[in-house]
Amino acid sequence: MTKEDLTDCYNRIRPYIHNTPILTSNLINTLVGAELYFKCENFQRAGAYKIRGATNAIMQLSKAQQQNGVVTHSSGNFAQALSLAAKSLNIKAYIVMPSNSPQVKKNAVLEYGGEIVECEPTIEARQKTADQIANRTGATFIHPSNNPNVIIGQGTAGLELLNEHSNLDYIFCPIGGGGLIAGTALAANYFSDQCKVIGGEPLEADDAYRSFISGKIESNLTTNTIADGLRTQLGSYNFPIIKAHVKQIIRVNETEIVDAMQLIWERMKIIIEPSSAVAFAAILKEKDNFKQQKIGVIVSGGNVDVNNLPF
Amino acid sequence: MTKEDLTDCYNRIRPYIHNTPILTSNLINTLVGAELYFKCENFQRAGAYKIRGATNAIMQLSKAQQQNGVVTHSSGNFAQALSLAAKSLNIKAYIVMPSNSPQVKKNAVLEYGGEIVECEPTIEARQKTADQIANRTGATFIHPSNNPNVIIGQGTAGLELLNEHSNLDYIFCPIGGGGLIAGTALAANYFSDQCKVIGGEPLEADDAYRSFISGKIESNLTTNTIADGLRTQLGSYNFPIIKAHVKQIIRVNETEIVDAMQLIWERMKIIIEPSSAVAFAAILKEKDNFKQQKIGVIVSGGNVDVNNLPF
Repeated sequence: MTKEDLTDCYNRIRPYIHNTPILTSNLINTLVGAELYFKCENFQRAGAYKIRGATNAIMQLSKAQQQNGVVTHSSGNFAQALSLAAKSLNIKAYIVMPSNSPQVKKNAVLEYGGEIVECEPTIEARQKTADQIANRTGATFIHPSNNPNVIIGQGTAGLELLNEHSNLDYIFCPIGGGGLIAGTALAANYFSDQCKVIGGEPLEADDAYRSFISGKIESNLTTNTIADGLRTQLGSYNFPIIKAHVKQIIRVNETEIVDAMQLIWERMKIIIEPSSAVAFAAILKEKDNFKQQKIGVIVSGGNVDVNNLPF
Repeated sequence: MTKEDLTDCYNRIRPYIHNTPILTSNLINTLVGAELYFKCENFQRAGAYKIRGATNAIMQLSKAQQQNGVVTHSSGNFAQALSLAAKSLNIKAYIVMPSNSPQVKKNAVLEYGGEIVECEPTIEARQKTADQIANRTGATFIHPSNNPNVIIGQGTAGLELLNEHSNLDYIFCPIGGGGLIAGTALAANYFSDQCKVIGGEPLEADDAYRSFISGKIESNLTTNTIADGLRTQLGSYNFPIIKAHVKQIIRVNETEIVDAMQLIWERMKIIIEPSSAVAFAAILKEKDNFKQQKIGVIVSGGNVDVNNLPF
C-alpha cells in the first residue's frame, strides 16, 4: 500500500464522503496541557469513519463484481456504512447480523438500504452465513476491517487531518479490528515527517496491545467493554502495518472511557460513542507525556443510543 | 440601533467570541424538505450565544464603570456568560442566583470566575439583591436580555450566519426574554433584502406569542416548560424590535420540543439544550410552509445536564 494508493483512494471516494470538521476546545487544551485537534468522524455519513473504507472497497471491485453486490457481517457501524456506500453506488448490500442484534441497529441498516440476513449469534455462524450468501449470489465478501482496500479508505481521515494540520506531533485513534489505526499509520507515514500514531484500546479487549508486545496476533481474553466497536479481533492485514508504523498502544479501563466520553459531551457539546472516547481517554491517562504537543484525535463515530447512556 | 451599531459591535467583540461553525445535515434536509443551516452557538464560549451580548455590554461601559464591575441575576446561561466575559476583560462580575439553584450551575459560574451572591428564590428577591450589590459596590446592572447593548451583541450570531449564507429566506430562533430574536431581527433587517425572522416559543411560556398578537407585552401564564432558558419575561427593549421586524411566532408543545431535541442529537451528533430545540421544533411543526426554502437556525446553546435527559 503505497502513498499513491492512498492519494488515489482519497480522490476516488471524495464525492461520497464528508470532509468532516476539525474542532478544538480551549477548555480541553488547558485541561490536557496540549493542543488537541478533534477530527469529527461522528459527523461523517452514517455517523462514523467506516463509510470511507466501505466506499473504497466497493469502488475497487470490477463492474462484474459490483453487479453481484457485496456482503459483510457486522452489527455495528460497518453494517450501516456498507449499506449506505452501496446505496450511493447503486449496488446491493447483504448484511449478516446476529438474530439478537438490537432493533435500533437493524432499523439503521434498513434505512440505508441494506438487506439484513439474520444468523445465530456466534462468530462461526456469522462467517458461515456470509459465505453462503457469497456462494449463492456471487456477492463479494468485504471484511469490516481486515481488508487492504478498507484499511486504505480508513486512512483518508488521517490524510484530511494532516492536510489541514501538517505540523501534528501525534495522532491518536482507537483500536478494534485495526483498520482505522493501520490506515492512519500509513497516512502519517506517507504525509508527515514527524507525526507519530498512538492507539487507545480498552483494557477489557486488549488483543492489539498484547499482540504489539508479543509480536504475534493474540486473541481477546475478554470483550467486556462499553466500547462496542472495539470488541473485535485484530486482523492479519492490519497487524504488520501497526507493528511497522504505530508508536505505542495505551490501554484504558471502563471508568476512564466513560469519564472521557462525558467530558467530551459536556465540554465540546458533541455526541461521541464510547469507542471514540477511548483515544481521548488514552491521552488523558498519559497527558504528562504529551505536554505542549500538537495532537490529532480521530473521533471515530457518534452512533450511540441516547436512551441508554452510561452516565 | 443602527446598522453601524451592529457592525461596530461585531468588530468590538470578535476577539472575545468564536465565529461558530454552521452545520448541515442531508438527512434533516430530506426530512424537512428544505435546506437548513444550523448556526452552532452550542459550540460558543460558555456553551451559548449569551457571551456575545455580555461581552458587548461590558465593553460599552466607561473605564470607571468597568472598574466597579458588573452584576446580573441569572441561574442560566447568562450567569456563565457574564462571568466569562468579565474574566476575559479582567473585570469583576457579581452573579445573583436563587439559593435553590442546582450546584452544577453554581459550579459553572465559579469556574468562569463569577462571584455568586445567593438570594431567596423569588423574582423580587433577585432584583432587590442585584440592586443592593449595585448600590454597595458601584457595579453596573446588566440585564440578561432587556438591554440594548445585549440585544445588539446577540445579533452578531445572525450577522455571522448571513455573512456566510447571504441568500437565506428565513432565520429561526427561540424566544425567551427576546434578546436573541430582537438582535437577529435587526441583523436580518440590515444585512439581507429577503431574509425573514421567525421565532419558536414553548406553548407553556408563550408571552411573546400573545404579546405579538395583542400588541402589548403580556406575561407568561405558565412557565412549565423543559426549555428552561425560555421561561423568562419578554422585555420592553425587545418587544418593539420584535413587533417591527419579526414575521411570525410559532408555538410548540413539550413533546415537540423533546422530539426535536432527540432528532438533532441522533442525526447531527451535537448536544443542544431544550431551548435550542424549540426553533427547530417550530420548523418541523410547520414544515409544509417552508418547502425548498433556505433556513438558518440559531442553535442557541448546549448546556444540558447529561445525567438528567428527557429521553
